[in-house]
Amino acid sequence: MPDAILTLNAGSSSIKFALFEIGSILLRIAVGEVENIGAEPYLFIQTGGALAFERRWPHGEALTHEDLLGAVLDWVDTHLGDDSLIATGHRIVHGGGKFIAPIRLTAEIIAELDTLTPLAPLHQPHNLAAVRAVLALRPNLPQIASFDTAFHHTMPEIAKRFALPRHFYDEGMRRYGFHGLSYEYISHRLPEVAPHLAQARVIIAHLGNGASLCALQNGKSVDTSMGFTTLDGLMMGTRAGAIDPGVLLYLQQSRGLTAEALTTLLYKQSGLLGVSGISADVRTLLADPHPEAAEALDLFAHTVARHIAALTASLGGLDGLIFTAGIGEHAPKIRAAICARLIWLGVEISPEANEASEPAISAISSKVEVRVIPTDEEAMIAEHCLAAGPGRL
Amino acid sequence: MPDAILTLNAGSSSIKFALFEIGSILLRIAVGEVENIGAEPYLFIQTGGALAFERRWPHGEALTHEDLLGAVLDWVDTHLGDDSLIATGHRIVHGGGKFIAPIRLTAEIIAELDTLTPLAPLHQPHNLAAVRAVLALRPNLPQIASFDTAFHHTMPEIAKRFALPRHFYDEGMRRYGFHGLSYEYISHRLPEVAPHLAQARVIIAHLGNGASLCALQNGKSVDTSMGFTTLDGLMMGTRAGAIDPGVLLYLQQSRGLTAEALTTLLYKQSGLLGVSGISADVRTLLADPHPEAAEALDLFAHTVARHIAALTASLGGLDGLIFTAGIGEHAPKIRAAICARLIWLGVEISPEANEASEPAISAISSKVEVRVIPTDEEAMIAEHCLAAGPGRL
Repeated sequence: MPDAILTLNAGSSSIKFALFEIGSILLRIAVGEVENIGAEPYLFIQTGGALAFERRWPHGEALTHEDLLGAVLDWVDTHLGDDSLIATGHRIVHGGGKFIAPIRLTAEIIAELDTLTPLAPLHQPHNLAAVRAVLALRPNLPQIASFDTAFHHTMPEIAKRFALPRHFYDEGMRRYGFHGLSYEYISHRLPEVAPHLAQARVIIAHLGNGASLCALQNGKSVDTSMGFTTLDGLMMGTRAGAIDPGVLLYLQQSRGLTAEALTTLLYKQSGLLGVSGISADVRTLLADPHPEAAEALDLFAHTVARHIAALTASLGGLDGLIFTAGIGEHAPKIRAAICARLIWLGVEISPEANEASEPAISAISSKVEVRVIPTDEEAMIAEHCLAAGPGRL
Repeated sequence: MPDAILTLNAGSSSIKFALFEIGSILLRIAVGEVENIGAEPYLFIQTGGALAFERRWPHGEALTHEDLLGAVLDWVDTHLGDDSLIATGHRIVHGGGKFIAPIRLTAEIIAELDTLTPLAPLHQPHNLAAVRAVLALRPNLPQIASFDTAFHHTMPEIAKRFALPRHFYDEGMRRYGFHGLSYEYISHRLPEVAPHLAQARVIIAHLGNGASLCALQNGKSVDTSMGFTTLDGLMMGTRAGAIDPGVLLYLQQSRGLTAEALTTLLYKQSGLLGVSGISADVRTLLADPHPEAAEALDLFAHTVARHIAALTASLGGLDGLIFTAGIGEHAPKIRAAICARLIWLGVEISPEANEASEPAISAISSKVEVRVIPTDEEAMIAEHCLAAGPGRL
């Protein structure tokens, strides 16, 4: 009768989850998702790679996270049988300056995390809605928060500070960085897959629909491309990334855009989607013959290469470059375009190894070792639940 | 009876000027400034390094650019005697997408340049006020505009594009870059002082109260750190430089700041002044024992080094690094702090040569040649007047 852990990653219109059995290792025994929340929710669950359960709610516009998570927890209870669920682990995007390690969620802590919503308005409220839903459904089930910001707390102050009046820093307006669960996972994998890089100067390029970079020294974050919010740094699927702040002032003062309209523009209508006018999806753009598709992808590679160079300055040189997440793991053409802009840095890939997405894609003569390591944020969340320890669960 | 050219650089509270005699070379015969416009204006003029003229207006709060330039032009006429002033050359901060070369100013062109004011609200209206003042005082005197943006028109489109919906680019919301007169001057000096760098990959660091970088390939701009406005890129004396756009959204949505308040914050209260809480002036900060002063200077060096690295990615490597403008020419400690963060790039300076601000400050073994070249934007403006040609004057 092994125990189990359920990990949850809740957004505005979807909840992704995974079920882990606690044995000698953490074994993922089921994965699933509730899609299309707020419209016609659809729940599907896979075990062993095959569909194990599905349910649709054709008139489910009004169904809440609580209603839908109830269905998930019911399936989990049935599926586990005599086993028992001992915790849920939640991905929480923002831990602010205070929450720099996983923590068991209490009503008091949930209330504190609520106050960080203005720092991540598109993620934090939905993350916390799932926590509240589980609290209502299973009041005694321990819930553990894993923060996307926490891994970057080791950054030196110089990497955290904006060139703003210093009271803003003291009030929490600093560069936090995100995608920390992904970076922590990769940094835990390094000693195993590339031990010589574990203590070296490494940049991880987490390139998914959201995208950022992390500079690792001795396995710790020393710089990152995202800042106070998830809008900063690289151009992304629909996000503009770092942009002249004068653009925002101009759009407001000369074009009359409200802060709300700017938020929509910069988070949802920009990036690959905005530049191409076609799609936010790299696969679609790679297959599209219009020059605008190629322009958007070129700008993406240009931006990533420029930021990799900037983070190399923080590291004082580069020994390893790791690609991960959707684009990083599955788009050899994009990896090649980025690396082609970094030859001066000693980055040289093997076209064949890259095309095959092999674990190591650098040429033997490359000064910088280039690798593809699939990320696994769910495994990291489950690990955090375990590390919180039986005493705390 | 040689002819002469007067160059003007007009801001909100000051007008700087220089008088050049046209001989076999352009000879600067006088320099001066009207300070403290809007309060108690003070005009001083130097010839041969000594004070030649001064005047104060103790109750001159209401005096306009026209009133004060009248006093300047009167002195010029007297000083030139039988010689004659054949043109004024104006530094105009923004030429938009259209004005990519010096041009003789007409009423029609002045009106077109007015429309660019929202793109440079702190500079453009004052630049144009001086043009209008001279037009009223000397209607027949040719006036030539030299644009700070023009030098960057050679940048490839990828360096000009933000990751915004593409119609914004077509409407002129693109990365223009500034300090072009300084970069053009330095690029004209290179064949003379460092001919092997003239066709190479070079970054110019124009570090003054305003600060930016320019990446030169074959003497042409291919990338720069400033973008749509002069707020972008490096941290400066009082400007924040590039900052997470989410910070602006947060300050408006959660702190209730208006766009006007944000403009003041980001242009006037941030940068070295904001971080140190002491001063915007590098000399003051270098002499100040408080840790906040050192923190501000460290962050400045960190930011400049990160941006130099990013521009190196656009160049595909680096052969030369040129320091210019107030800080770049006169603050060896800052140059050393920046270069210390670029050793990985092959930058190695000679401490003695740097301390003495010699023309070449790199060590013999340095892969990147590091130089100090004093800039001279006034000379560039005067050259532009000459190049506009006698036919056009």
